[in-house]
Amino acid sequence: MSFKLTILGSNSAIPTVKKHPTAQLLNADERFFLIDCGEGTQIQLLKNKIKVHKINHIFISHLHGDHYFGLIGLINTMHLLGRTKELNLYAHQPLKEIIDLQFQASNTELKFPLFFHPIPTDKEKILFEDEQIVISSLMLKHSIDSSGFLFREKKSTKNILKEKIETYGITVEKIPEIKKGADFKLKDGRIIPNDELTVVAKTPHSYAFCSDTTYVATNAEKIKGVTLLYHETTFMQDLKDKAIQTGHSTTIDAATLAKQANVKQLLIGHFSSRYNNLNIVLNEAKSIFENTILATDGATFDFDLI
Amino acid sequence: MSFKLTILGSNSAIPTVKKHPTAQLLNADERFFLIDCGEGTQIQLLKNKIKVHKINHIFISHLHGDHYFGLIGLINTMHLLGRTKELNLYAHQPLKEIIDLQFQASNTELKFPLFFHPIPTDKEKILFEDEQIVISSLMLKHSIDSSGFLFREKKSTKNILKEKIETYGITVEKIPEIKKGADFKLKDGRIIPNDELTVVAKTPHSYAFCSDTTYVATNAEKIKGVTLLYHETTFMQDLKDKAIQTGHSTTIDAATLAKQANVKQLLIGHFSSRYNNLNIVLNEAKSIFENTILATDGATFDFDLI
Repeated sequence: MSFKLTILGSNSAIPTVKKHPTAQLLNADERFFLIDCGEGTQIQLLKNKIKVHKINHIFISHLHGDHYFGLIGLINTMHLLGRTKELNLYAHQPLKEIIDLQFQASNTELKFPLFFHPIPTDKEKILFEDEQIVISSLMLKHSIDSSGFLFREKKSTKNILKEKIETYGITVEKIPEIKKGADFKLKDGRIIPNDELTVVAKTPHSYAFCSDTTYVATNAEKIKGVTLLYHETTFMQDLKDKAIQTGHSTTIDAATLAKQANVKQLLIGHFSSRYNNLNIVLNEAKSIFENTILATDGATFDFDLI
Repeated sequence: MSFKLTILGSNSAIPTVKKHPTAQLLNADERFFLIDCGEGTQIQLLKNKIKVHKINHIFISHLHGDHYFGLIGLINTMHLLGRTKELNLYAHQPLKEIIDLQFQASNTELKFPLFFHPIPTDKEKILFEDEQIVISSLMLKHSIDSSGFLFREKKSTKNILKEKIETYGITVEKIPEIKKGADFKLKDGRIIPNDELTVVAKTPHSYAFCSDTTYVATNAEKIKGVTLLYHETTFMQDLKDKAIQTGHSTTIDAATLAKQANVKQLLIGHFSSRYNNLNIVLNEAKSIFENTILATDGATFDFDLI
């Protein structure tokens, strides 16, 4: 299963011409999950050649504008483009009224079902689950309610070899049990052992998205060993006081969490507009956790290569 | 007085990478009036090197998203940049609740006074007036309440010659009456005739902004002889039925109004995304009103040159 993350916006609250506010797209085997949706996200999707009709699930971490002001425009565009299939929105409760009020003001009746799934603010919750992936909320600590998101591919026991399906005429119904370890019985009675039909699946990918938050030590256990951790890094360590005061993290906060959680790689973003040279920001994080990279608008990360 | 219009966005409802939704900036003698504010307007202001703190008055024509989804982000950025001076917002009543609700959700208390001036939907109204300009609403006809805006420089009777102020020691208090035609009496009793102190002022500029609307014949009288008329031109004439159905105008509608109102120049915009070659759109409008030009993102029009 392919697992790729595209950064649509990497800046903090005030956008610049080159750095947009937070938005990311996770492509999990051609299912597209949009995470946060700052102003201009629909244009960033266009620039990155991602078709909006492919997005069926949108996750909004919190209701500061740089994380959701682009949402209403994106939903409106989906409507104008004639979307009919359902859209699922996971966010804190007040967003529902904000959206409803704006469509009411424009006398718009959406042509597709928009399902609003409120994220609880007092506990973690599984927000979405299917046969391949489970997505949960994480508790963050910011100046207003803020949630992170944890995407975990399910452990697929075994992968079936495509050529064997043809060779032995394996029907679709038989595939799930073979993936779980069953042998296959041919019409003539011969038994094909499971080992001949399958390969051991690769390690499942996982992605933790920690949006606006101070350092939350208890999250280390919850995101333990994830393939990639995105963690906001609004400030460098010399502005630690400002970070605490505004409910944000520093480079050292993010890198410390990455180290404690023993993640494979740390991705930092949500940079204050004061930083022109992000390499200095990066190096400070690397001083604690070496395998750290920068989120930059338009960059795509393939989890198979992490 | 300099009078210049910059197009920040010229497209209709669905934005493209190169054409943003409606937003314009009128610079009337270094006073900056923002007209509509589609998503991404703050980035367009940055790209066009217009400082957001210079804007003190914002006019929103109607509450379809492509005309105001960028407003909340712009106001939020003004707040984050530490603005303290007042901002005046002229729009239809429901916008107030939409803004209030979003700042409430983010627990934001604006650091500056935001004065909301509701635009009446049943009559025209003077929205702003000072010694140099008067700005009124126009009644439009769209699928929801929609207003145009008419900016008229006041007829300054005469302009005083700056060098004469110094030569004769003319005090600030005396200037208004000299501009109205009075002579100036020196301390030694000599009278300096008005003709020596002033020049005849140039024709005052005027700008009519007709946002989303069908053709409204009665507006021809109201915008009679304006220097520049912006009129939406969502469709070409072959889609006249669709224009009527959606409350929009065609090239021919816009050009007909320009001709009836005897304006100096017509500026067309708000193009449907279906038109890749806007020259064809332009030519159709020109067939009725020759002095027609296209609104394109980033273009600036100097009223002294019209």
